[in-house]
Amino acid sequence: MFSDIDFAHMERALALATRGLYTTTPNPRVGCVLVKDGIVIGEGFTQPAGQDHAEIRALKDARARGHDPRGATAYVTLEPCSHFGRTPPCANALIDAKIARVIAAMEDPNPQVSGRGLQILRAAGIDVRCGLLERESYELNIGFVSRMTRKRPWVRVKVAASLDGHTALPDGTSQWITGDVARDDGHAWRARACAILTGIGTVLGDDPQMTVRAIDTPRQPLRVLVDRNLEVPAAARLLVGAPPLVYCARDDGDAAARAQALRDRGIEVVALPNEAGKVDLRAMLLDLGARGINELHVEAGHKLHGSMLREGCVDELLLYVAPSLLGDAMPMFNLAPPATLDARMQLSFHSVDRLGDDLRILARVETSVPKPTA
Amino acid sequence: MFSDIDFAHMERALALATRGLYTTTPNPRVGCVLVKDGIVIGEGFTQPAGQDHAEIRALKDARARGHDPRGATAYVTLEPCSHFGRTPPCANALIDAKIARVIAAMEDPNPQVSGRGLQILRAAGIDVRCGLLERESYELNIGFVSRMTRKRPWVRVKVAASLDGHTALPDGTSQWITGDVARDDGHAWRARACAILTGIGTVLGDDPQMTVRAIDTPRQPLRVLVDRNLEVPAAARLLVGAPPLVYCARDDGDAAARAQALRDRGIEVVALPNEAGKVDLRAMLLDLGARGINELHVEAGHKLHGSMLREGCVDELLLYVAPSLLGDAMPMFNLAPPATLDARMQLSFHSVDRLGDDLRILARVETSVPKPTA
Repeated sequence: MFSDIDFAHMERALALATRGLYTTTPNPRVGCVLVKDGIVIGEGFTQPAGQDHAEIRALKDARARGHDPRGATAYVTLEPCSHFGRTPPCANALIDAKIARVIAAMEDPNPQVSGRGLQILRAAGIDVRCGLLERESYELNIGFVSRMTRKRPWVRVKVAASLDGHTALPDGTSQWITGDVARDDGHAWRARACAILTGIGTVLGDDPQMTVRAIDTPRQPLRVLVDRNLEVPAAARLLVGAPPLVYCARDDGDAAARAQALRDRGIEVVALPNEAGKVDLRAMLLDLGARGINELHVEAGHKLHGSMLREGCVDELLLYVAPSLLGDAMPMFNLAPPATLDARMQLSFHSVDRLGDDLRILARVETSVPKPTA
Repeated sequence: MFSDIDFAHMERALALATRGLYTTTPNPRVGCVLVKDGIVIGEGFTQPAGQDHAEIRALKDARARGHDPRGATAYVTLEPCSHFGRTPPCANALIDAKIARVIAAMEDPNPQVSGRGLQILRAAGIDVRCGLLERESYELNIGFVSRMTRKRPWVRVKVAASLDGHTALPDGTSQWITGDVARDDGHAWRARACAILTGIGTVLGDDPQMTVRAIDTPRQPLRVLVDRNLEVPAAARLLVGAPPLVYCARDDGDAAARAQALRDRGIEVVALPNEAGKVDLRAMLLDLGARGINELHVEAGHKLHGSMLREGCVDELLLYVAPSLLGDAMPMFNLAPPATLDARMQLSFHSVDRLGDDLRILARVETSVPKPTA
């Protein structure tokens, strides 16, 4: 169905899409390659929100290089949009440019609009095919797929641990269990996330900035704090710079003054209590989804990580394993053991890589995010 | 120094050597290829103890196939022996056969004899070179190298754990954390070991047989039990079949009768107490080395594993990691945390592989076993 040449051009479109890894939020990362008479005449990838989508960039690129896109094939890593959002629909732009053929990696994951962009193209007489390197495009936009299909972000929990599964000494010392390469890699995962979440325990213990520093990025993710009783100290480094978003269990009574103090500094405070008087983590994820958060990167302590796991709020573990033993130290997750082995929490290994002296393991929890069949 | 053709023949010699993986103990696994006029005229690998070494097998093979080995090149994965052991020295046999050239992967690791075999060959006018695929030969015989250089076996501790570093539920249930592929692989590692060691805690908890069952092998490793107070039940499955070797802390006083009962069944009982009244694990390793144990495979509980780690009695962890979480269950090792992160026990990842749904991680403790420089 697809030729080697089709694969090569779609690989290039995916490489272009990846160049938007740190910047397209809340839009998906999309790449587009225009090919005419066997020659690449234009390329583009999604610009920051409100600016050009990949297809528009590629059309402009072709024209800037003196090419007429009429009759060309467009390789695009996601179904062209068919609706007026912050920008006009890309499907119309492709039709107007008299593109002859469109090959898409995957349909728009939003079930409400999925296939409509391809339909419009087909109705305009364009030869349309879909499904080339679908899994690769899906992985690149797994957060966007999650938000479109589940209305919540893809949640990735980062942990650095020793080979025997401990994250810190009993006194909390954890700097550094893993090496430079793993730590820098952790910042790259922060950079691609729309938001970085931590808990009050980590703020009180480590006073982290929760920013991307080890690598260059034009955008800092939104910082999110889970702080049931609004205990965050006024001098916390998390409160410096772009205002974080704070979820608490209540902002009235004796918490009202603390909430007001934060709001006076321009910090949004959202009360989302559950029945146990803690922050309702599932409601928080839906709220983050409504705010356009596709990928949520979590770096907290074993208590919040444990709560998120227990409440079905984790999609993926990003685990850095150091080749050392810490003995009876801090556990990875605050989780009660299951009653039987059959009842244990099951994941699957998605990838395993060596990073310097350490390992990076991506393990996924089975979720309801629809997967490509390919 | 070595040609592509030399590499190819030595690779073949290593493949032959590997065929002795389960059987050559206490001898090293050695392979030999004889090449004359560009043609392989004979092949061999070390037979079970007391039978032919690799070089003798290869010479016999050449003659059986109608070839005269005179003038041939011998590729051999270990320096030919120069002493009369259970069999006459191979160096002499190569000289007698008028072999023209010998290429060895590595020298004999025994510092007392290292190089003497090559010297004898050179003195006989044979063109001798050494060091081709040295690391591969070293890995194949890491246990033999350990015994020759440190007088103790290479100790490999096998653990199956969840991703969060737990080996069992709090009640001890551990069957099965990992899948079939990993379990069968564990039996292959048992099969290559000269001895399999476990502790009384595992015997009382799981009553294991500690035999190789999942794969075919013509030889069952010696079974070794660490049983401080000789608590092993008379009906334990470990006592069925070939008699195990039992290390205790004392065989006198109230333990005398229990020791005698075991000895009456043909089971050797060795008392090796340390100052704390436990089994002296380091002395045990030296005793096992004196018995010709090259590779010791350990499958015990977190207490014995922890003691062995603390006392510097572990060379390698063979860790099977399942993609599941067990929460606050049984730890991997009974180890006190270090006072500072700098004082933690440091290992290095030797290999990482996917086995079915699980991971297999080989991590090494820094040891005093001399490594090839190549």
